[in-house]
Amino acid sequence: MNGGKAAERLWQGRFLEVHAAPWGEGGRWEYVTRVNRIAAAVILAVTDAREVVLVEQHRPPLGRPAIELPAGLVGDETAGEDPLSSARRELLEETGFAARRWEDFGTFASSPGMLGEIFHFFRATGLERVGPGGGAGDERITVHLVPLPEVPAFVAAARARGCAIDTRLLALLPLLP
Amino acid sequence: MNGGKAAERLWQGRFLEVHAAPWGEGGRWEYVTRVNRIAAAVILAVTDAREVVLVEQHRPPLGRPAIELPAGLVGDETAGEDPLSSARRELLEETGFAARRWEDFGTFASSPGMLGEIFHFFRATGLERVGPGGGAGDERITVHLVPLPEVPAFVAAARARGCAIDTRLLALLPLLP
Repeated sequence: MNGGKAAERLWQGRFLEVHAAPWGEGGRWEYVTRVNRIAAAVILAVTDAREVVLVEQHRPPLGRPAIELPAGLVGDETAGEDPLSSARRELLEETGFAARRWEDFGTFASSPGMLGEIFHFFRATGLERVGPGGGAGDERITVHLVPLPEVPAFVAAARARGCAIDTRLLALLPLLP
Repeated sequence: MNGGKAAERLWQGRFLEVHAAPWGEGGRWEYVTRVNRIAAAVILAVTDAREVVLVEQHRPPLGRPAIELPAGLVGDETAGEDPLSSARRELLEETGFAARRWEDFGTFASSPGMLGEIFHFFRATGLERVGPGGGAGDERITVHLVPLPEVPAFVAAARARGCAIDTRLLALLPLLP
């Protein structure tokens, strides 16, 4: 699988890059990274009333709105910003919430077969609404506060009206038999 | 956000494509799809002894091994293959397990901000080991059977030896406060 050999850059855009790594007998494995391999921060924010804070926005890659956990890029507005500071900023910008308690669950890979992207996953509790939310710049974000036991019904209703569901919502669904 | 306007294809490879959709005032949003927008199938497979079936393989996009749920592409070996048939095939190829019960949890988006990829998420129970596993072709897959209560410690140990962790493992971690 030749994982140690250098990958070749096939294409570079403003935000994304495509690379190919050697694979098998003379083959190559195409994959994508963000420029500079910038990472994301994703926040599982739960209120004292045990509601999860979800965001909804139109997503060009999917061509439809998506229901997601609040998230953003680490250091996309301030160079050198650490993941927790990014998470605090994004939660506030997107949802208007500040949190007293933050827990770091480490990094996860979004799609290991095609994407170099990793994200830092945080849980935020002790929430207080201190701003309007809605996002920065061109973002048009709707905030949903969903009681945890109602998440499966909320997801079903969102799918019925044409929304995509972010993979991170797997953390909220009762999946273990 | 101009979600209705046509996206432009910026680059095409053998497996991946890069597109740009109009965004904001004259801007554009870069994103990636698989060629033909082929979808994936991901399987949460749990044995009667309440062990989850995890796979480990080198992942060129990450440059290191990743711990993942078993997964594969829908119809990459047989045109017209439905998602459940793909899931059955991939679980058998990668892990050697067949399952008596399959439940379909619908589709999820892997990374809504940069990726058009969706995957079908299945839970498989009533497992029986009927083959060697290990993957097809150039795949070199190691199978791990991990008792559900031991998943957090398994993840910590995998990270300590340099593995990436697939986002779908969020379904297995105790994250709700």
